[in-house]
Amino acid sequence: MLTLRPILSALRSIALISFTVGTTFLSASAFAEDVTASNPNPAKNVILIIGDGMDDHQITIARNYLKGAAGRLTLDDMPVRSSVAVLTVSEQAPDEYIYVADSACSGTSMSTGQATSRARIATTAKSDIDIETIVEMAHKSGFKTGIVSTSSVTDATPAVFASHIQYRFCENPEKMVTERFSCPQDLKANGGPGSISEQLAVSNVDVIFGGGMENFTPTVEGGSTSVLDSAIANGFTILKTKQDLNNVTTAGKVLGLFADKHLATKLRGEDGRIAEKPEPSLLNSVHWSLGEVDLPEPMTCETNPDAADTPSLLSMSSKAIELLSTDNDKGFFLMIESASIDKQSHARNPCGSIGELDQLDETVAYALKFADQHPGTLILVTADHAQAAQLVPESSMFSGLDIPVYSPGSMVRIITPEGGLMGVNYATNDFFAEEHTGAAVPLYANDVAIGKIDTYISQTDIFDIAKQHLGL
Amino acid sequence: MLTLRPILSALRSIALISFTVGTTFLSASAFAEDVTASNPNPAKNVILIIGDGMDDHQITIARNYLKGAAGRLTLDDMPVRSSVAVLTVSEQAPDEYIYVADSACSGTSMSTGQATSRARIATTAKSDIDIETIVEMAHKSGFKTGIVSTSSVTDATPAVFASHIQYRFCENPEKMVTERFSCPQDLKANGGPGSISEQLAVSNVDVIFGGGMENFTPTVEGGSTSVLDSAIANGFTILKTKQDLNNVTTAGKVLGLFADKHLATKLRGEDGRIAEKPEPSLLNSVHWSLGEVDLPEPMTCETNPDAADTPSLLSMSSKAIELLSTDNDKGFFLMIESASIDKQSHARNPCGSIGELDQLDETVAYALKFADQHPGTLILVTADHAQAAQLVPESSMFSGLDIPVYSPGSMVRIITPEGGLMGVNYATNDFFAEEHTGAAVPLYANDVAIGKIDTYISQTDIFDIAKQHLGL
Repeated sequence: MLTLRPILSALRSIALISFTVGTTFLSASAFAEDVTASNPNPAKNVILIIGDGMDDHQITIARNYLKGAAGRLTLDDMPVRSSVAVLTVSEQAPDEYIYVADSACSGTSMSTGQATSRARIATTAKSDIDIETIVEMAHKSGFKTGIVSTSSVTDATPAVFASHIQYRFCENPEKMVTERFSCPQDLKANGGPGSISEQLAVSNVDVIFGGGMENFTPTVEGGSTSVLDSAIANGFTILKTKQDLNNVTTAGKVLGLFADKHLATKLRGEDGRIAEKPEPSLLNSVHWSLGEVDLPEPMTCETNPDAADTPSLLSMSSKAIELLSTDNDKGFFLMIESASIDKQSHARNPCGSIGELDQLDETVAYALKFADQHPGTLILVTADHAQAAQLVPESSMFSGLDIPVYSPGSMVRIITPEGGLMGVNYATNDFFAEEHTGAAVPLYANDVAIGKIDTYISQTDIFDIAKQHLGL
Repeated sequence: MLTLRPILSALRSIALISFTVGTTFLSASAFAEDVTASNPNPAKNVILIIGDGMDDHQITIARNYLKGAAGRLTLDDMPVRSSVAVLTVSEQAPDEYIYVADSACSGTSMSTGQATSRARIATTAKSDIDIETIVEMAHKSGFKTGIVSTSSVTDATPAVFASHIQYRFCENPEKMVTERFSCPQDLKANGGPGSISEQLAVSNVDVIFGGGMENFTPTVEGGSTSVLDSAIANGFTILKTKQDLNNVTTAGKVLGLFADKHLATKLRGEDGRIAEKPEPSLLNSVHWSLGEVDLPEPMTCETNPDAADTPSLLSMSSKAIELLSTDNDKGFFLMIESASIDKQSHARNPCGSIGELDQLDETVAYALKFADQHPGTLILVTADHAQAAQLVPESSMFSGLDIPVYSPGSMVRIITPEGGLMGVNYATNDFFAEEHTGAAVPLYANDVAIGKIDTYISQTDIFDIAKQHLGL
């Protein structure tokens, strides 16, 4: 296999040697080397930023809107870019592949290095064995750890880093046995660790920020106090508001739950509009080539008023980085998720996804700046799986034929700030939530990763890359 | 902007210096350096391989089928991987962007370095000025040039490298003025260069291989002989069969037209099946949550019997490389297109697209081997635009709810050789041809490009990269 690795390893050695024999390299742009020189063993940090459902369509849609077709996201300027296979196995036959993932199994690949079946949280397919996560391993080795998400902190992506359960929807003690799903063997009564929120409450994670307060208010299984009380008893300081987040400076463990459910998105469609079905004329029902079609009226994106009291992903992430890096010579592992790129694609709301990708991109910019000042910091940015949204012509490429050609699904025509008209199609089903899709997803990394990541890897390799960086 | 470029330029210098001070590096794996050392000025070649419509969905679908979910294509082992913005401008207002391209404008970006409007062949939007192509520039500078495609050689992607016309469908003298489209200002009678086939026939391209004989049988505008006769008069040797292709050794210009239209695809669906509409029960028409749905029966892919007499993309490409590299110290520019990845996605035939991606991948393997022996050879592999096919769950992710959830478009469920079941969805419209989509596309390159290509570029940069490599 052709790879940059040996060449760049050689380069890194050469660069280090060059540095030790002279100081003329030192300049403003060599700030990172300067820091390294004064501190040859900087703290080793990994910041893994996951855009849930952030595939190439979502990225292009967001870029067109946020920066223009010829513009660049912060992501686009990262020096390492790879493509990542998303591997899912069958629950019944774990040696067989399923070609489309959910966030539980794809997150488990990244948090544990092992592919599993859909809906599983850091447990093996069929055999249901708990798999140690990178967060647990990092903690054991003395690193601080953090989990930040715009979803409920009990949602699949944050959950796979610090809990182990058969079924992702067993989020709190009241959801362990339901009509539609259940996790009987994870019940405490059966010797299990309890629901996801119960596991997070007793975890050793230093910083947990997101939504999902509703999963911490139920009473713990077999007890008389709430899951939140259990977290407090376990040493967590609880934050509930933007103000709490701004003010916190504690060196102890912090659990920030800033909404009952998921955090509100930054953007929404004009007047709350989402994708709509094209409306063909009656004549078109006689034959596909007859009549006309009304496509959805063009619209803009607007600020979501529901998000006024919601901390941004950037504010949660920068606070997490501050708390994890202060007085910490060893280093930290931090997972940051922009969760609703996916959720808003399920809901056919491209403006929602665009705003959440914007939140991710500005968080990436912050993380890169932190890494510039803390040269032991590896930044990885990726997606867990691809999503349904497709960037399509705003009116059919065949509309010149004077035949009503239109999506059988739902679509939006977004007026972009640069004055263009962008079509987004949602047509994997007509249910209230679109399907995930199975394309490989992108991985971006900062200069620390140059020469260390091949151009095509598996999602399980992300665990190995992080582990190797921290020396676990 | 963070970039590998300065670091790797430095590395390349260091590597060259290292080489000049010792020969212990020489080994089997250092064959390329060996050749460089014995010939410090090897011929400079560019092989640009375009998978029409080959986006990340198409690649993942093909990989799952051809190599398995955990397998690797030749593409996956290439050492450089970038993402490419596909830029299209409005015909009426060329400073405004359109977010989905066709092969004519995206090909023009690569062949000329200038973004244009849809359907244009190497001409500017609105102002309709001919733009010099990389093939024309390379020829002027003494390089040999070649164009290979599985489509008619007059189709958009091959056409943009060696012809200039307002409208891509003006492929031969009989198609210059029609009811649906016309290219009046390109008529010879109006001082223009004539149709695409007429332009190719009088071109200086050394090797042109593909389909499209039907575009060379009409009589040239204002003349009495066929376009093919005009090509012969211009010095082209004409090839028509696989046997002709195998036997040709001429040092002169060669025009191989191996089919009347596009070349037949390597694979097709079982018994010729393509995507089909899911069939909901009558009860489901009463309410979306009621009744049942029959999804298309799973199927395999099979060899397309129509392709028995068709030369493979590999056989055309290897012959083109042989002809272009023989007795040529200067070098060559060769464009190779696997055209029907796109055409079979328009037609909702995933097996067709898979087979054509397989053809591309084996051609890439051949080109990489040639580059190993000819170290001045830059291999670029990319797509011109994204396509409609989506890799989706073979049955809905929500099928556990016992509600009939299904695509409003058409789908296929393919039995993969590794025993999986892969869903592919086509739902951008219900017309007889699906739409293109607008996601950024991948770019792969061989080791010659290490450090020379940023992780995110524009399609117009591909022209510049090729130009720079040839020193044009």
